[in-house]
Amino acid sequence: MKTYIGIDLGGTNVRVAKVTADGQILNEVKSPSYALEGPEKVMTNLISCIHKIENWKECSGIGVGVPGPVDTLRGEMIMATNLPGFVRYPIAQTLQTEFGLPTYVDNDANVAGLAEALVGAGKGQPVIYYLTHSTGIGGALVVDGKVVSGKNGHAGEVGNIIIDRHRQKYNHLNVGAIENEASGTALIRIGRERLNPDIKSAGEVFALAKAGNAVALDIVDKMAYDFAAMCSAIAHTVDPYMFVIGGGVTKSRDLYFDKMVGYFKSMVHTGMQTIEFAIAELDEPGLIGAAMLPISHGK
Amino acid sequence: MKTYIGIDLGGTNVRVAKVTADGQILNEVKSPSYALEGPEKVMTNLISCIHKIENWKECSGIGVGVPGPVDTLRGEMIMATNLPGFVRYPIAQTLQTEFGLPTYVDNDANVAGLAEALVGAGKGQPVIYYLTHSTGIGGALVVDGKVVSGKNGHAGEVGNIIIDRHRQKYNHLNVGAIENEASGTALIRIGRERLNPDIKSAGEVFALAKAGNAVALDIVDKMAYDFAAMCSAIAHTVDPYMFVIGGGVTKSRDLYFDKMVGYFKSMVHTGMQTIEFAIAELDEPGLIGAAMLPISHGK
Repeated sequence: MKTYIGIDLGGTNVRVAKVTADGQILNEVKSPSYALEGPEKVMTNLISCIHKIENWKECSGIGVGVPGPVDTLRGEMIMATNLPGFVRYPIAQTLQTEFGLPTYVDNDANVAGLAEALVGAGKGQPVIYYLTHSTGIGGALVVDGKVVSGKNGHAGEVGNIIIDRHRQKYNHLNVGAIENEASGTALIRIGRERLNPDIKSAGEVFALAKAGNAVALDIVDKMAYDFAAMCSAIAHTVDPYMFVIGGGVTKSRDLYFDKMVGYFKSMVHTGMQTIEFAIAELDEPGLIGAAMLPISHGK
Repeated sequence: MKTYIGIDLGGTNVRVAKVTADGQILNEVKSPSYALEGPEKVMTNLISCIHKIENWKECSGIGVGVPGPVDTLRGEMIMATNLPGFVRYPIAQTLQTEFGLPTYVDNDANVAGLAEALVGAGKGQPVIYYLTHSTGIGGALVVDGKVVSGKNGHAGEVGNIIIDRHRQKYNHLNVGAIENEASGTALIRIGRERLNPDIKSAGEVFALAKAGNAVALDIVDKMAYDFAAMCSAIAHTVDPYMFVIGGGVTKSRDLYFDKMVGYFKSMVHTGMQTIEFAIAELDEPGLIGAAMLPISHGK
């Protein structure tokens, strides 16, 4: 079976793995990413990590997941908040020159979505919409085993979808953007406003809901409704075979997931009731999905 | 150059044309569709129309556009309000058996979007979102020259996207669905409520706006804002290179189009400001797009 090198390049750490075509991690190297020391240092370190992978020469390609939107045609980042200096830095070209292997770059949410579509919960489905429901809310569209990144690498930036224009302005996102209303961060803010100013995590809100606290139950219910409204907008746009949802908030799925799916069904056409919802399956979607990038390009 | 047979099968008429790969109509046959007499009669008539096309045997494939969602894998309609008896009727298989040519079926909005993506305003763009702004509001996603129809043929049913949940319930669509707030039909309803109970067309509302009527100007402005909100949701989902917009309402584009694009830019990330908006170019997108279906399948 073919193998690939998958790289999860973050602002703190970088991880490099040799991964089989069916998503098994064979071996892995981890290192600080040295993001604050600039692209040259980050890349020199990354290259040395790849050299440590056993028999890297046998691999059929390299894929890199990065935090931020990517120009996937050129393999360069368009925005790079956590990797200073990387805007328009030729990541793909640098690695391709060094190792002589076809190299592709995409953002971490797209890469995770690709992993779930090819070897995870969405395996075999022609159109998948992957969603991360975590500190923020993001996503990825995968059609026929290929990520659709869009013109500016912003396909999947669904956290900015407006689910109710009559909310408050909090940050650079739209008023009523779903990320400001239903993310883990939003749950903390709303929990502090409505439950207790000392709330420190979304998990505390869920714990209160589980204990029967009426206000916490209402917060969770409204989150489920708002999240469903975002899914409804996505569904009418692309009609996916399946939504695959990952991220920390889904750990509390017993408290809201079925309700959210019910709200969703009330917000889409009769003919769309068969759209499935699944929880993400993979432990390492970022690393595995990066390794899947060459596969999605036919390598 | 290769040629294809394009068919626009409606509830009233059916049109059949021989079309070149670059979208030129060579000859055309038109007939009543006999929809109320049932599928056998409709298909017998359609087959005789195709036989009237000069040298149909030289064509490389057949494409059919129909009014309603389609199971594109099987070439069958899923809903068929205007073609009674056609739900799950084997349109593609019947024509393929009769003519020995590869045959594909898709709904009329998807087919029009495909035409604009391949030989119209969106030519050469990797990801197009086509929108019809007319009596209703619909659309189509075209990625790398192929329509993404989705699980239930409902990709592009964007008329049901909720742009403001605090509106009234009018019909089977969602409360605040864009089709109920910004379509030609919606403009008539709002015009009757706010301008004059005798308003009979969206054109009358636009005429009043052009004459400087403050209420009409406000109606058109709110329509532009609501339409932009829908485009914003679509853009964060797929980040198209270009929106291509057709339909009767765009005839009054001088009164709202630039304003709508401005609202859109205020509702998307900085990195998405380069998404383009174009007016649909083709006179016969339904007929030409149907003929493009075999091309999009590599025929």
